Amino acid sequence: MLIVPGPASKELAARVATKLPAPVCPVDSKYFPDGESYVRIAGEVRGDKVAIIQSTYPPQDKHLIELFALLSAAKDMGAKFAIAVVPYLAYARQDKRFEEGEPITARTILQMIETAGADCLITVNVHKEDSLRWLKIPYHNVCCMGAMGNYLRQLNPRIPLVLAPDRGALELAQRMAKTMDAESNFLEKTRNRETGNVMTVEKDLGVKGRDVVIVDDVISTGSSVSNAAKICKRQGAAKTLVACAHALLANSSRERLKEAGVDSIVGTDTIPSDLSRVTVSDLIAEVLRKYV
Amino acid sequence: MLIVPGPASKELAARVATKLPAPVCPVDSKYFPDGESYVRIAGEVRGDKVAIIQSTYPPQDKHLIELFALLSAAKDMGAKFAIAVVPYLAYARQDKRFEEGEPITARTILQMIETAGADCLITVNVHKEDSLRWLKIPYHNVCCMGAMGNYLRQLNPRIPLVLAPDRGALELAQRMAKTMDAESNFLEKTRNRETGNVMTVEKDLGVKGRDVVIVDDVISTGSSVSNAAKICKRQGAAKTLVACAHALLANSSRERLKEAGVDSIVGTDTIPSDLSRVTVSDLIAEVLRKYV
Repeated sequence: MLIVPGPASKELAARVATKLPAPVCPVDSKYFPDGESYVRIAGEVRGDKVAIIQSTYPPQDKHLIELFALLSAAKDMGAKFAIAVVPYLAYARQDKRFEEGEPITARTILQMIETAGADCLITVNVHKEDSLRWLKIPYHNVCCMGAMGNYLRQLNPRIPLVLAPDRGALELAQRMAKTMDAESNFLEKTRNRETGNVMTVEKDLGVKGRDVVIVDDVISTGSSVSNAAKICKRQGAAKTLVACAHALLANSSRERLKEAGVDSIVGTDTIPSDLSRVTVSDLIAEVLRKYV
Repeated sequence: MLIVPGPASKELAARVATKLPAPVCPVDSKYFPDGESYVRIAGEVRGDKVAIIQSTYPPQDKHLIELFALLSAAKDMGAKFAIAVVPYLAYARQDKRFEEGEPITARTILQMIETAGADCLITVNVHKEDSLRWLKIPYHNVCCMGAMGNYLRQLNPRIPLVLAPDRGALELAQRMAKTMDAESNFLEKTRNRETGNVMTVEKDLGVKGRDVVIVDDVISTGSSVSNAAKICKRQGAAKTLVACAHALLANSSRERLKEAGVDSIVGTDTIPSDLSRVTVSDLIAEVLRKYV
């Protein structure tokens, strides 16, 4: 098996290659002056299995087109099996028709990945695993909550509570809590019928003097997490940490979280940044080993 | 038939709708805070034919994903025939494998348009019409050189010469020259074997005191066109105009053209800007009439 690093995930791909272990097949990439992406598989893949590692964080659309181009090139060049490793899968939250006339873009993206030539998909903490059912090819949805829990445990948090900012994230919180040997809890959100605003309902969390880890799969604007952080601070929590698989952190969300009292944000290398303190490379390598 | 305006071509779609004539089906669109595109067909398309008009100028990748989402939504909503009208088709110049390991991205994009649900494709002056052969669905490659020629003739150019900056653009120049009742000619480019730079070979064009129209399908960096313009100026041309179907004009290419002595640039509304003085709406409406 060869590891083919997409332009969005060069470092993660190098980590996966080391851990598998498997050789890296070099990729040339650039942008043309008008903004079009150029990619090229600069090694021999004929007759081999390839794992193309390309996360699709912002600019999502550019990273997606590069992924399609790499898959297509690998198949054209005679790769016998192409695994699309898409650690952060863009558009996964557009997974149902909330209003008539909306596309189910999550489904469209998955179809495109198949059409481009993927024989298998590996992703990390996709927003809803159920949305992967549209794929005809096999898929693996890796969960990084254990790896994050191990990292957080080493920080020696004080009688930690792992908190889900809404019911949707409860399962993630439970998984992380198990690894950390900690308690978990969750908050609930309601929509104000008049204003349409979503509010987090405060309840007693018993966090006075304790450290809290607020957990979510993806943090974009950070509004749910900052609501949860404010509640923890009001109830006398010591440190408030935020842990998420995919720290998108659009616009001014870092400042928002800081203002809400969040002491630290921990993300993974599905989205490379100064916050990606946990690597998902071991988890990806583990799945890839099944295909070697 | 309903006209569905994609976010990249709202004005062009309105023009096509007026000329066909056909009603416009409203589309809601926005960007989420993390940069994901949202589109929604906000009208009834069930049982109807739809023409989704979405050009894919920069940001190309975003406009492509929006096109795929709109096609998919139209089909989900029960449209019985979906025509993808993509006036400027991105990635069309990546239409062959120049080097081993490159994807043929033009083909991949066409496959994606089909997968998303297109039953037919209409485009304008695609870089090489031959590249559309990869489509299984019917397609129409509309030529705007006649419409541009008519516009330019009204400017009363002085004994005009229509000039192709390289052999590839000669056919376009000939078509435009025919409409303008003018002469045409072309230049040739060579690659310096040592430096790898592409040079335009000067030849006598007989343009002293005449107006020249330099024609190309797409202008990105503008290097071929500015080389041609310099030759015309050196040979004593009066005015030097540039006419192209798709005026991408990346980075500082406008300044480059001005410095080369170009007096005016004329583009079309395949890429909306202050240069889009010619509309392709009549040409698109004419093809759509076959499907009404």
